[in-house]
Amino acid sequence: MTIERFSLNSATTKRWPLNELVAGCVAAGVRQVGLWRDDYSSATQAASLVRDAGLAVTSLCRGGFFQADDWYDDNRRAIDEAAALSSPVLVLVSGGLPAGSRDIDAARAHVGDAIGKLVPHALDAGVQLAIEALHPMFASDRCVVSTLGQALDLAAPYPAPAVGVVVDTYHLWWDDQVWRQIQRAGQEQRIACFQVADWITPLPEGVLLGRGLPGTGVVELRRFREAVDATGFAGPIEVEVFHADVWARPGAQVLADTIDGFRSSVL
Amino acid sequence: MTIERFSLNSATTKRWPLNELVAGCVAAGVRQVGLWRDDYSSATQAASLVRDAGLAVTSLCRGGFFQADDWYDDNRRAIDEAAALSSPVLVLVSGGLPAGSRDIDAARAHVGDAIGKLVPHALDAGVQLAIEALHPMFASDRCVVSTLGQALDLAAPYPAPAVGVVVDTYHLWWDDQVWRQIQRAGQEQRIACFQVADWITPLPEGVLLGRGLPGTGVVELRRFREAVDATGFAGPIEVEVFHADVWARPGAQVLADTIDGFRSSVL
Repeated sequence: MTIERFSLNSATTKRWPLNELVAGCVAAGVRQVGLWRDDYSSATQAASLVRDAGLAVTSLCRGGFFQADDWYDDNRRAIDEAAALSSPVLVLVSGGLPAGSRDIDAARAHVGDAIGKLVPHALDAGVQLAIEALHPMFASDRCVVSTLGQALDLAAPYPAPAVGVVVDTYHLWWDDQVWRQIQRAGQEQRIACFQVADWITPLPEGVLLGRGLPGTGVVELRRFREAVDATGFAGPIEVEVFHADVWARPGAQVLADTIDGFRSSVL
Repeated sequence: MTIERFSLNSATTKRWPLNELVAGCVAAGVRQVGLWRDDYSSATQAASLVRDAGLAVTSLCRGGFFQADDWYDDNRRAIDEAAALSSPVLVLVSGGLPAGSRDIDAARAHVGDAIGKLVPHALDAGVQLAIEALHPMFASDRCVVSTLGQALDLAAPYPAPAVGVVVDTYHLWWDDQVWRQIQRAGQEQRIACFQVADWITPLPEGVLLGRGLPGTGVVELRRFREAVDATGFAGPIEVEVFHADVWARPGAQVLADTIDGFRSSVL
């Protein structure tokens, strides 16, 4: 079975320095990576490193956090970095409620407005903004966008080449509406990024680092992959796992296990 | 401002023995309590204790956990206990995925079927079963019913006097569909129980004991109360908080703070 659609998101091997990650991917036959902005100090140098190794960047994480004072400038920089890396996609994590606020409707509306202000620069740069719904357990402190339907509603006013959505199995698996919304996302040409992680319990304190490698949890990963493919999507499939135990292991071992899980549970 | 609609769910003062809780409620002018099955060894004796103090039981927690082998007998017993306590409502927490299963659709369908099998006994006993949607972070290990819309869909085949739903602010606050679903729940005469707790972060390990007393978190509690009231619901409002720090404090103090939060943030 081919792994040509597989992309290693660098968050999965958080402590692997970028040059070693790139070499490790080449050695393992992996041709694509999803990167994070804290993987590099210079996007241009990172772009050279990746390109010289023959790798493609499938997405850059992340823009968003629209409650921060400098959200506009920071997101413009993030778009520029995505362009420098030849990443077709910039993932947006919206941020949570403003300090002291309980007005989640207002926070969500602000996210939509803010994205609209970034659309011209995204189009100029040739970078598609990808709104990511995070699991509702992050709604107050990390991302007020909680479902794929909501992400699509926020994207709707803008052209699809400028604003798409992320389908991430970890955040969406519990939602009985997700199959319909994946179909809708395909019809609306909005699937910009497809990320895979598994759901395992118990969740750790703070719940951020609780994800499992593919196949270690309860998510119907193949059903997701088939649903996304059924829309006509034939793009990369990133595996993006956050877990302290995974991060504590050598990058090459984690990559090998990730590929195994991808083959057995996603393809 | 009156507290006549206030009901203390005993989970909020977890370590307060039932006789002390009852005396404490009387002393504080509280006339209603929501109980848990582990509050007593004999439902009949508990019923006497509560009744003799002039208190009413607003709900009994809980039935459900339909993946357990003995779900049928155990839920019949829970219905009988609710009847013995003159509780109009038995709250159902559905349980998570069966061990080794990834089939959440099947687990959800089983919940609906199982509830159907309990309907005749619930009608005989005069106890309304109340399907509770738990926050999606509990979907795999505690409750596969994740939204109010889902709970209403599961209740729909059965008569409303037998099967209703719980509106719990803690579990539902993140859902942009919840306002429409509360309206629907009212129209369908399904609001059996209204429970209030606040959302605070960071979540603790295991995420069960992370709830805040009313007013300490980010939930629009008054908006929920007004939305529920707007359907015509005029029943009790239970405060049900699970938190280790709250449980560590004397029951009477927690009750006083709970009433304060109820007055300032819910009424």
